[in-house]
Amino acid sequence: MTPHLTSPQTSVAPVSVGLIGLGAMGMGMATSLRRAGYLVHAYDLRPGVAAEFASQGGVACSSLQELGEACSVVVSVVLNAAQVEAVLHGAGDSAQGSRGVLAAMRPGATFVMCSTVDPARSIAFESQAQARGVHYVDAPISGGAVRAAKGELTIMSSASAQAYEAAGPVLDAMAAKVYRLGDRAGMGSKVKIINQLLAGVHIAAAAEAMALGLREGVDANALYEVITHSAGNSWMFENRMAHVLAGDYTPLSAVDIFVKDLGLVLDTARASKFPLPLSATAHQMFMQASSAGYAHEDDSAVIKIFPGIKLPRGSAD
Amino acid sequence: MTPHLTSPQTSVAPVSVGLIGLGAMGMGMATSLRRAGYLVHAYDLRPGVAAEFASQGGVACSSLQELGEACSVVVSVVLNAAQVEAVLHGAGDSAQGSRGVLAAMRPGATFVMCSTVDPARSIAFESQAQARGVHYVDAPISGGAVRAAKGELTIMSSASAQAYEAAGPVLDAMAAKVYRLGDRAGMGSKVKIINQLLAGVHIAAAAEAMALGLREGVDANALYEVITHSAGNSWMFENRMAHVLAGDYTPLSAVDIFVKDLGLVLDTARASKFPLPLSATAHQMFMQASSAGYAHEDDSAVIKIFPGIKLPRGSAD
Repeated sequence: MTPHLTSPQTSVAPVSVGLIGLGAMGMGMATSLRRAGYLVHAYDLRPGVAAEFASQGGVACSSLQELGEACSVVVSVVLNAAQVEAVLHGAGDSAQGSRGVLAAMRPGATFVMCSTVDPARSIAFESQAQARGVHYVDAPISGGAVRAAKGELTIMSSASAQAYEAAGPVLDAMAAKVYRLGDRAGMGSKVKIINQLLAGVHIAAAAEAMALGLREGVDANALYEVITHSAGNSWMFENRMAHVLAGDYTPLSAVDIFVKDLGLVLDTARASKFPLPLSATAHQMFMQASSAGYAHEDDSAVIKIFPGIKLPRGSAD
Repeated sequence: MTPHLTSPQTSVAPVSVGLIGLGAMGMGMATSLRRAGYLVHAYDLRPGVAAEFASQGGVACSSLQELGEACSVVVSVVLNAAQVEAVLHGAGDSAQGSRGVLAAMRPGATFVMCSTVDPARSIAFESQAQARGVHYVDAPISGGAVRAAKGELTIMSSASAQAYEAAGPVLDAMAAKVYRLGDRAGMGSKVKIINQLLAGVHIAAAAEAMALGLREGVDANALYEVITHSAGNSWMFENRMAHVLAGDYTPLSAVDIFVKDLGLVLDTARASKFPLPLSATAHQMFMQASSAGYAHEDDSAVIKIFPGIKLPRGSAD
């Protein structure tokens, strides 16, 4: 899974790839694609953001239509399913109703959907794309902004063989690992949802454990040292409790992301009436943190729902 | 923290160490102590078990009194606080009432308590030992039978300086890592309890995630591969879901261990009226598994509480 530096079907002009949504993740992915030799067309709802990206190379598009017409592969990196819907079909309800990207894409082009969404929604998006002759890759991403900028994301994907043939090198240019989990949309999103189930429960469990330690007078740094070398460790405990020890709740990923993502987990399971007791409990904890005023703090701020403890305050203490 | 092969205060006879409770963990620890050069006195309630150990070297004791009189350091590796109580003070209620080890130990000797217990109980045990001039080490263990046999346990300990001076080399002979977390009993047990909180929640969360994947038609092996390389991973997911994939519920650690240990976690928090939403939920899941007939299966059998899924059955499938 080494990145393809150039696309095999051209030795004259670089392949045009579209990147929609230049947030913390999308900007890094666009940069990785440019580094891999692609001509990157970029679009972002916020005026000027695409132009700023293009000042280093690439093309700023002023509309989804312009981007869709220019690119054989379009990568969408937006916040949620509603935004994917607007990217595909346009925000037609508004007075300034814009066309979506799908109507502008050529048959045989490929749309890559990188958001974390209900798997049923991704399956529907694939049908809408295929109805227009556009290939579709269900391709939720994981790894954070730093790894996005390095082209070292993890992509949990599923797609048809034709879609992979068209978009495979583009996926490889953005990721250290591209998991191919099935031959149509849905499996990528399902696995991503299950990863989010574990990530969310583990963050809330880490907070609960650290909170009990503080309540019981255990030294927080010693507790961190022991747990990270014991069977109670998780990737999230090690990563997020470092924020708590530092007293730094600058949002790398915010509380409200897990309000959303654990909500998607529960929606998915509810559709087949499947019980998820820990996910439901963790979701309540993140909603409690959000309502208490910590919605936009780092997700480790879920520890602030625990009463009767004094949190570490880092160097400011 | 390299093991001390001999104790510095003697160049003639090896130091006598007592080991009470030759179960899966205790047998391995006794073997590690013997390998480190100690003369190990062993006692187990089950007739013949100590004699079998001693046939390879060491001394089989027929009573706690005999062991207590012979040893300067006594290591207790029994199941729970009630058994520690019986080890210390004897099972005096029965018609065949036996004396405990504490009355037989010399002043200045040291008792090492390796069970997972309510920290308040360990604090009380220390007081009882000190009232008789016996040092006490709060020393819960982690790592499993294989590491016990190799002398590579993790010990989460707290004790007075005198207790550490007496028992430190003995602890080092049994462990790859001895955490010293405070100068009296309680902190070792608190950190161990918090590790069990995380371990129990993570096993139940792993089961919940894998169950959702099976419900959604995700390939279980692919899900394991992705999660163990993603931010949703935990030590327990990686370890215990391998049992589920193999369809092998042979108990390395049984469901009822977490019924007990999460119960201890909740007891500890209840004493200060501290809420633990995820621990309480996970405890209910293990109790559901226990009542459903899986009490003595591997703790990963908590996945069997999820309805409407078909579990992998390993090579027998």
